[in-house]
Amino acid sequence: MNNKGILIVLSGFSGAGKGTLVKRLLELHGEEYALSISATTRKPRVGEEEGKAYFFKSNEEFEKMIREDAFLEYAGYCDHYYGTPKAYVDEQLEKGKNVILEIEIQGALKVREKRPDTLLLFVTPPNGDELKNRLTGRGTETQEVIEARLSRASEEAEGVEAYDYLLINDELDICVEELHEIIRSEHRRLTRQQNIEKIAKIREELQKFRKGEK
Amino acid sequence: MNNKGILIVLSGFSGAGKGTLVKRLLELHGEEYALSISATTRKPRVGEEEGKAYFFKSNEEFEKMIREDAFLEYAGYCDHYYGTPKAYVDEQLEKGKNVILEIEIQGALKVREKRPDTLLLFVTPPNGDELKNRLTGRGTETQEVIEARLSRASEEAEGVEAYDYLLINDELDICVEELHEIIRSEHRRLTRQQNIEKIAKIREELQKFRKGEK
Repeated sequence: MNNKGILIVLSGFSGAGKGTLVKRLLELHGEEYALSISATTRKPRVGEEEGKAYFFKSNEEFEKMIREDAFLEYAGYCDHYYGTPKAYVDEQLEKGKNVILEIEIQGALKVREKRPDTLLLFVTPPNGDELKNRLTGRGTETQEVIEARLSRASEEAEGVEAYDYLLINDELDICVEELHEIIRSEHRRLTRQQNIEKIAKIREELQKFRKGEK
Repeated sequence: MNNKGILIVLSGFSGAGKGTLVKRLLELHGEEYALSISATTRKPRVGEEEGKAYFFKSNEEFEKMIREDAFLEYAGYCDHYYGTPKAYVDEQLEKGKNVILEIEIQGALKVREKRPDTLLLFVTPPNGDELKNRLTGRGTETQEVIEARLSRASEEAEGVEAYDYLLINDELDICVEELHEIIRSEHRRLTRQQNIEKIAKIREELQKFRKGEK
């Protein structure tokens, strides 16, 4: 029985703690998950290895990949391309790993168009006060910076209605287990191929018993 | 925040262990679940109390309830009516309890028509051999009885494609926790009202911060 992994998009308000959440999930359940690796045309920074944080591409290479439909989604940001190459994601899914993409809602919706069985999860702090505290930091930011962050955070939830699950990140370790539970439960969906096949196999066996073949 | 319970239908092959599963779930997590109580026109057996295993009704009472659309589903079986009264289910859901109906697929599909957010779960033994063993029992049954059970079991999966989740009941305590996990995860669905409201509230608070109202 080949249990394919599930493609997971994790989005959420800035300051919701997505990065920490994913890091902790990989520490605790790393054998079941893989983090998607993005491709980018920006130059590697010191210490950044090819195929770890990013696949580094030239503009020509990246645009060739776009023409070949090799991305689940891509976008331009600050004069550089960023995208999610299909090949790496598919390789991990085939191995049975659940693959996590940490992207914003607009990108998530593009991924879902190409892969309708993608799970969309939205992470939020427990309430607005907590979010404000996380965004305003230690009081060292200017009013303008804080204003821009609050404005951006509000926009970050545009389109969230299309998402599947809401995760409240209050206590990190609880939130990690909730995320893991959701994924485990999703593996038991009857729409997943391996489950349809399981039932078909049992019914087939019952027919054989009846015909006395077994 | 009023977190309403979830209506759950549990179906499955005879011999899949649904009854034991529900009993164990209530032992371990009874504060979060309630078992739906059916109404029936059959006479109470010795020791059966009104409102425990069943609500006992006369034919006239039952038919009046049918006319008043007071059932989520009902059916005739061996000259008696059996049905799921809405009132008890709704009362428990409002209290925040997840309510379990243990009914067959045909009834389940009727419930889902009335309540589209009902969760449908199908329980199966790990494989056909195991199911056959459970159905044939200790070798004391006649070939005809066994034949009838195998035939019925195969039919019991008709319509299962409409179900949400498949539960493999291999080890009872593991299966109970899987069931409980699925329900907990379903409470985090973005389609559930309380989750939509949580996000709306946070966005509203962000707007207030921006306007300097807080």
